[in-house]
Amino acid sequence: MSHYSTVTIIGLGLIGSSLARIIKSASLAERLILTDKNPDVLAKARTLGLGDHIEHDVSRAVEHADLVVMAVPVGAMAAVTAQIASALKDGAVITDTGSTKVSVINDMAPHVPPHAVFIPSHPIAGTEYSGPEAGFESLFKDRYWIVTPNDAPAADVDRLIGFLRGTGAIVESMDSAYHDKVLAITSHLPHLIAYTIVGTAFDLEQDLQNDVIRFSASGFRDFTRIASSDPIMWRDVFMKNSDAVLEMLQRFNEDLSYLQRAIRWQEADKLEELFTRTRDIRKRIKDAGQLDS
Amino acid sequence: MSHYSTVTIIGLGLIGSSLARIIKSASLAERLILTDKNPDVLAKARTLGLGDHIEHDVSRAVEHADLVVMAVPVGAMAAVTAQIASALKDGAVITDTGSTKVSVINDMAPHVPPHAVFIPSHPIAGTEYSGPEAGFESLFKDRYWIVTPNDAPAADVDRLIGFLRGTGAIVESMDSAYHDKVLAITSHLPHLIAYTIVGTAFDLEQDLQNDVIRFSASGFRDFTRIASSDPIMWRDVFMKNSDAVLEMLQRFNEDLSYLQRAIRWQEADKLEELFTRTRDIRKRIKDAGQLDS
Repeated sequence: MSHYSTVTIIGLGLIGSSLARIIKSASLAERLILTDKNPDVLAKARTLGLGDHIEHDVSRAVEHADLVVMAVPVGAMAAVTAQIASALKDGAVITDTGSTKVSVINDMAPHVPPHAVFIPSHPIAGTEYSGPEAGFESLFKDRYWIVTPNDAPAADVDRLIGFLRGTGAIVESMDSAYHDKVLAITSHLPHLIAYTIVGTAFDLEQDLQNDVIRFSASGFRDFTRIASSDPIMWRDVFMKNSDAVLEMLQRFNEDLSYLQRAIRWQEADKLEELFTRTRDIRKRIKDAGQLDS
Repeated sequence: MSHYSTVTIIGLGLIGSSLARIIKSASLAERLILTDKNPDVLAKARTLGLGDHIEHDVSRAVEHADLVVMAVPVGAMAAVTAQIASALKDGAVITDTGSTKVSVINDMAPHVPPHAVFIPSHPIAGTEYSGPEAGFESLFKDRYWIVTPNDAPAADVDRLIGFLRGTGAIVESMDSAYHDKVLAITSHLPHLIAYTIVGTAFDLEQDLQNDVIRFSASGFRDFTRIASSDPIMWRDVFMKNSDAVLEMLQRFNEDLSYLQRAIRWQEADKLEELFTRTRDIRKRIKDAGQLDS
């Protein structure tokens, strides 16, 4: 069912190209325009047959759009919004897909013209792959898509929510600062930790004669999946959600020091207590239907 | 092809029960005797049809064995070895499956009688599940199985290696201290980190209204898999490989502090440099054939 006449997606990475696929296959819009600052990405999108129209010029790409979806790294949101502001048509709705919400609001809102409506959003979905070839139409199915509408008109919000539900996502509304805190612990800190441990192992590689690679099936491999995620996207996330990430990192460090001390002093019971408790959380994720990607 | 007349497995968790399955399906021994200190586990093994003979008494279980495989937590190796020592027959080979090698050697060697041959080993394979139902016969296929033979007779070592290869594993010989160092970074530290971050999130749960669970698909979920591994096995690993784990933890902490500082001071280039570098290691794991479990 078509929710908008014309939708424009800016940025054709994993998220943007997945959204393009589901918009076409579920007919969520009458016309889909795609743009990206990288000509190679646009050429790939054309080869893949994504969208109805490929447009190199970002202002021209948005001028007929009823909905503009910004699927660029959070560090690029401000500049792209400034670029398209004067081309947005009356009543156009603009949303983003950024993993941080407070920073995106602070960066974008000043550039959104009064005749357009900004409704920030974030699909909680992804893989370690990036680029237009990496997208697939079921990426959002049964995953959460958060909207943080603040004071956007209810009719516009409802229409956007209907559209987002069309992707298969579970749409929920929440406060932007709360979103950033939850994502800091469920996503940003895990990524930071994974990047760190893979880096630590990398530096040991020479010393350990490639055995880190060979014996990676013993646990390490799971971290390398996360640590192969898009570097630019993640660099921006940490720059933009630094306060919440540093707060969660502080808690993590305290907990790690506690275990470190328990190992040093051979306090087996403290480890066993934690290890038994953490098993439960896996079960609850399974019960919540969020186990299989 | 049968490598031993009688094999006895002590401990029927994930490793022991998987080994039992492949021994039977690949006919790696003429007779397979199974024992476990837990009567419920033995009852399950019987129901599952594992092995040729289920024996409650551990001494009687080993008295005819040409090969004894100890698949118990590393903290239990010393006591079980002491229990079976006098029952071992002349020339019996005894191996273990422990994730730490120096401690297992220190704990077991004093109890192994002079008429038996001790050849420590460790299959680098596993899942987050435990117990006899969790085992499966392809667990060791294309995974490494390390032996640390020290001064065991070459004929006995060769025979054991032939048997272990029969499980589908890639068998390699190495020094026990080196093994413990490699495993500390590829396995033990990743598990410790995963347990920590899941614990940190768990403590925030009340505050975050179950949203850690709901939004777990954003990265956190991968850590919960590792953090649902067997608590007793892992408690023992950290108690037994504490020196190597604490050394790796020290390196990890330094690297994490470096990133923490980069986030606080908004040094985007430092993050981008690391995040770009860590992508490569995933590719190398794939090239090494260790990506899919």
